[in-house]
Amino acid sequence: MSDIQIKSDVTAKLVNVWANDVMVAKAARVSTLGKESAADDLPTEALINFLMRDRHGSPFEHTHFTFLVEAPIFVAREHMRHRAGWSYNEESGRYKELEGLFYVPSSDRALLQVGKPGAYSFKNGSDAHFARMASNLLGAYGEALSAYKDMLKAGIAREVARMALPVGLFTSYYATCNARSLMHFLSLRTISEESRFPSFPQREIEMVADQMEASFRESMPNTHAAFVAHGRVAP
Amino acid sequence: MSDIQIKSDVTAKLVNVWANDVMVAKAARVSTLGKESAADDLPTEALINFLMRDRHGSPFEHTHFTFLVEAPIFVAREHMRHRAGWSYNEESGRYKELEGLFYVPSSDRALLQVGKPGAYSFKNGSDAHFARMASNLLGAYGEALSAYKDMLKAGIAREVARMALPVGLFTSYYATCNARSLMHFLSLRTISEESRFPSFPQREIEMVADQMEASFRESMPNTHAAFVAHGRVAP
Amino acid sequence: MSDIQIKSDVTAKLVNVWANDVMVAKAARVSTLGKESAADDLPTEALINFLMRDRHGSPFEHTHFTFLVEAPIFVAREHMRHRAGWSYNEESGRYKELEGLFYVPSSDRALLQVGKPGAYSFKNGSDAHFARMASNLLGAYGEALSAYKDMLKAGIAREVARMALPVGLFTSYYATCNARSLMHFLSLRTISEESRFPSFPQREIEMVADQMEASFRESMPNTHAAFVAHGRVAP
Amino acid sequence: MSDIQIKSDVTAKLVNVWANDVMVAKAARVSTLGKESAADDLPTEALINFLMRDRHGSPFEHTHFTFLVEAPIFVAREHMRHRAGWSYNEESGRYKELEGLFYVPSSDRALLQVGKPGAYSFKNGSDAHFARMASNLLGAYGEALSAYKDMLKAGIAREVARMALPVGLFTSYYATCNARSLMHFLSLRTISEESRFPSFPQREIEMVADQMEASFRESMPNTHAAFVAHGRVAP
Repeated sequence: MSDIQIKSDVTAKLVNVWANDVMVAKAARVSTLGKESAADDLPTEALINFLMRDRHGSPFEHTHFTFLVEAPIFVAREHMRHRAGWSYNEESGRYKELEGLFYVPSSDRALLQVGKPGAYSFKNGSDAHFARMASNLLGAYGEALSAYKDMLKAGIAREVARMALPVGLFTSYYATCNARSLMHFLSLRTISEESRFPSFPQREIEMVADQMEASFRESMPNTHAAFVAHGRVAP
Repeated sequence: MSDIQIKSDVTAKLVNVWANDVMVAKAARVSTLGKESAADDLPTEALINFLMRDRHGSPFEHTHFTFLVEAPIFVAREHMRHRAGWSYNEESGRYKELEGLFYVPSSDRALLQVGKPGAYSFKNGSDAHFARMASNLLGAYGEALSAYKDMLKAGIAREVARMALPVGLFTSYYATCNARSLMHFLSLRTISEESRFPSFPQREIEMVADQMEASFRESMPNTHAAFVAHGRVAP
Repeated sequence: MSDIQIKSDVTAKLVNVWANDVMVAKAARVSTLGKESAADDLPTEALINFLMRDRHGSPFEHTHFTFLVEAPIFVAREHMRHRAGWSYNEESGRYKELEGLFYVPSSDRALLQVGKPGAYSFKNGSDAHFARMASNLLGAYGEALSAYKDMLKAGIAREVARMALPVGLFTSYYATCNARSLMHFLSLRTISEESRFPSFPQREIEMVADQMEASFRESMPNTHAAFVAHGRVAP
Repeated sequence: MSDIQIKSDVTAKLVNVWANDVMVAKAARVSTLGKESAADDLPTEALINFLMRDRHGSPFEHTHFTFLVEAPIFVAREHMRHRAGWSYNEESGRYKELEGLFYVPSSDRALLQVGKPGAYSFKNGSDAHFARMASNLLGAYGEALSAYKDMLKAGIAREVARMALPVGLFTSYYATCNARSLMHFLSLRTISEESRFPSFPQREIEMVADQMEASFRESMPNTHAAFVAHGRVAP
């Protein structure tokens, strides 16, 4: 069996950003003040709070975040279901030989699913559960990588050989969004007591979302605070 | 090792459709005739031809095709990169236990990749190539399914157990588009001598696209003919 | 001064539709049941209610409504700010000579604006208010139409001559959407006590929205009921 | 009659930008190189040229341009028909009293329309044509502004009073796009001998597009050169 590499975390690194709270306020003020950029009587923070509360979303779109995400394929699959205001470029199994790097949950990941579809919760498994998961994943990953490499060695096309590879394999992609599309993503892919609507993200995409939220909070503190204050609903 | 089922074809079945050439002409004529629906001096076929040639795309959007696609995960991954004018709902490995149905290319599938990234071509492999591919895929698929089932048996969450499953596993999804977004998909996911721009789709998504094109041709013969006549470029 | 025609209502006529509640349920069930179309234990109505409550929006997108709208330009301007899931084709002042049909509010239209930006309310004016509005609008409309016609008569291009025409002029356009994008439009362009979030549409686009809502309710009664029950928030 | 202000030019001022050629190449290389950012054997310029030729559009989306546009309403109307990859915030006639600033074409603007719908060309008018246009526009504009102001003075709501105002009135808006959506806009809204597909923009939106193209060329010289070299077709 081939030697595999494993990793238990995912990363969403901010690589480019053009975003700040002042631009949100400027875009909103064009409605009431026209081309004049002079401030109106409502300061930036209060204006953003009003926009969030009454769900005026468009002023948040004149911003730009680009992340480089490294995560397993099943996370990329969920991420790329977000269409509006998102752009993606991903590593291709047709164009390059994929590395044998696989995801295995860490021992503190809740492994047992409780409840019904649409409202699952999760609880921790025993050490035996963890061991059984790890050995099954490692076994399947190793078999898959061996099969993949053997096909490549025989000259079979990468796009065919990759069919053997599991959705636990790591991939890399650039993901670009604006503050509005990011808030929509966060509303669905994070879990928080402040949320007005329930969300049930898989832990691994939540790890991506949490890192994106930290970048968002840093670039746009007023917008982030208003997002939280108004129930984490995207405007 | 678990018993696996295999299949060598994919399907894209038309389940709903509201589309015809007359609506394209009506939508275009609103520009020149306003609310009056009386025909202008250009008949439908000639009008559609003109719209395609000069790339007036919006009149093609007032149409609707819904397909039920059954294809491996790597096809769904490519399909869902199409964002504008597409809607999707897919089988979820978090909400249901996935069936052990896997894709293995048929013996007439070209297995050998020739040329450079961005301009690959493919040629047929020998019987030995086919045998080596088949045994590797079947081996990896069987291992993966066994690992998956063993984890489920141990009570581990479906969303964790599925990490072992390969991108060659079948999935099902509804995909809805309009004639414009469909033409854009076809321009990239089919191969044709009439194409003005080169395209290099993987064979398996081309199989999906070919079936969608047959439905499109049947519902909108004039639009399809104009699409072909003008180099298979989406307007 | 040229003879003008006036109208005090707007129309949004349903011209094509492919939409029903059953398709929403089918699209949602593909997640939990895969390709099998057999009903799960949750009936359609309850399933739609659950989707709306937890804001699972994508199953509502496999539907299609096309409207022919006849409304003043200022309404079309607001309407076409809706981008996601909407398609438009409009009468063109470059391609045809525009008709002299103009909008004048009817006598029951509230003419006086009260309150601050973002939270206006309106109250009825006196007969004198109505008379003053009517004479001003009719005067400006007549002048504009005369100027337009005089320029056309002199051979000046339609695209230049139209610059004189007011945003109160009627235009016609086809607008196509799906049930999800329609609900988003309705959440912003109608006023209702059931709304969880406040909305402040101009009366004239509300008249368009009310007609669209009637078509929506008729085609998709369960979806409409769930939309209302959950605060008229688009999922 | 009220005093009006007139202007014969439009402006599209770049207010924010995050865009360069290197990011396009990086996004493209993630396909072939994965997370490694090391250069492949194709330099940036050649890689961008290849992407443009073969119409790989997504790598161009990780960029961001925000413009403040000041132009007449009929230009804003055409601009906002561009939905994918565009965000807008515009001055509102509901929230503020609009200024009496109007557009009158300059004397070098071709005023006479020749040919058929979909393939118009324009030629210069005589001095008499110009004078007739100017007096008609100024007359209609003045009447409209007087009517507007008289209604406001009587306490009638701004959203009603504005119905009298013409599409030749100036408005202001922020418009944000990425390099891909910008190229699509340029392909339709500029006229050039290098264009592979014909385009017939109205002169006034072409003036907006020309200014945007200058900003684009400056930020992304390789991308712009490839766009021109490949027939000004958006990838």
